[in-house]
Amino acid sequence: MASGNHAPPIIVLVGPQMGENIGAAARVMKNFGLKELRLVSPRDGWPNPAAEAMAAGGADIIAAATLYDTTRDALADCHHIVAATARDRYMEKPVLTARELFADFGRNNIMSPKTAILFGCEKSGLSNEDVALAHAILSIPVSTEYGSLNLATAVGLVSYEWFQSEPPVRTDISDDHVAPQSELHGFFDALENALDERGFWKEPKKKPIMWRNIRALFLRSTPSSQEVRTLWGILKCLTIYRAEEKGE
Amino acid sequence: MASGNHAPPIIVLVGPQMGENIGAAARVMKNFGLKELRLVSPRDGWPNPAAEAMAAGGADIIAAATLYDTTRDALADCHHIVAATARDRYMEKPVLTARELFADFGRNNIMSPKTAILFGCEKSGLSNEDVALAHAILSIPVSTEYGSLNLATAVGLVSYEWFQSEPPVRTDISDDHVAPQSELHGFFDALENALDERGFWKEPKKKPIMWRNIRALFLRSTPSSQEVRTLWGILKCLTIYRAEEKGE
Repeated sequence: MASGNHAPPIIVLVGPQMGENIGAAARVMKNFGLKELRLVSPRDGWPNPAAEAMAAGGADIIAAATLYDTTRDALADCHHIVAATARDRYMEKPVLTARELFADFGRNNIMSPKTAILFGCEKSGLSNEDVALAHAILSIPVSTEYGSLNLATAVGLVSYEWFQSEPPVRTDISDDHVAPQSELHGFFDALENALDERGFWKEPKKKPIMWRNIRALFLRSTPSSQEVRTLWGILKCLTIYRAEEKGE
Repeated sequence: MASGNHAPPIIVLVGPQMGENIGAAARVMKNFGLKELRLVSPRDGWPNPAAEAMAAGGADIIAAATLYDTTRDALADCHHIVAATARDRYMEKPVLTARELFADFGRNNIMSPKTAILFGCEKSGLSNEDVALAHAILSIPVSTEYGSLNLATAVGLVSYEWFQSEPPVRTDISDDHVAPQSELHGFFDALENALDERGFWKEPKKKPIMWRNIRALFLRSTPSSQEVRTLWGILKCLTIYRAEEKGE
């Protein structure tokens, strides 16, 4: 049994509906040594007495939970994003079980200091836009007869698997090696603007999926802060050149 | 991922308090392919609308749940009993994690066709008398900071681990090889009577723990039906001899 030797993942609940589920999630996070809960637009506002009532020994996690307007804001300082989803998304991302995820946590250098795991709302799960923010998809194997997991159950299974996982091999990856998502998203915004301005999307209808695929490509490489600066440099260089070309 | 190839364990909730927890347990059992739920004296009676409301897709498990007055009755047809408990009981029984339990399920011939896993009530867990009925103790590793698992969470983790486990190596153990608990308990009753009659317990105060240890010894050997008959034979033989001796 490991735990603690490697930083636990941050749990991000996107649009959770029932306070009871938020509380139950905090309780089971506490049972398995997780510490940080982030909430994106919970349906019934925040704070929520129903969450506090269900949290039991996880009350401190509820008290310290932070609130965000958008999923992207909630992930700004994170390095590695995993989206928990049962549905097939047909995106170019690795799909892992919780056990596989945390095996990687220990074995490889892939996983980065601040890992966030996204869970969608009870009714419909994560939107495609939210899943597109992730490096990997987490899929919990369930019975074909009835696969709908309660939100807190899903958080609990992931927390349990983290607690069961082995501590990582020592790695030289540090916080400033892998870029936090805010840097990558800043680059994405600039790239999207540049492509918009230049009419890159031949068929505007197809932009959402094309843009998702482009971002997935960059996400997969988990660039360092230095590499994101390089990407900025490339973009700037290409767009300035283009501007000069136009100016001629 | 295995599941299905080997019979899922039966979940036995002893004295559960909240209908919501019974329902949530049924839901997560269904998520991971478990089928049979038994209830020993649920606090709020049965059926319980709160359980039905929380069961979602596990409604059929709630509808088919069976009710018992005593834990012993609930286990009568079972072959292998596992008690889920967080507290140290100082009993001579193997202590396993859920993962270890189901690894054995597959690897060894130890586990028998009908395995029941006992969970105690929310407030105080299983009594020592209930734990004494078990062959093994199941202990879920939790954080030292806050180890109190919600009842449905505990059932969920065990169900999940069963679903993740590998199917067993083929074995020749059949239903009539390992004795169902009713046969063993019948023998226990006769043995206890015989010992009572003969003043075996020098210090009556110590009887509960001594008797528990004696039963643990027989439980550990997981006797077959034939072996239980042999034990009966030995007991009969010894007691008749004693009666004749007395009669002389």
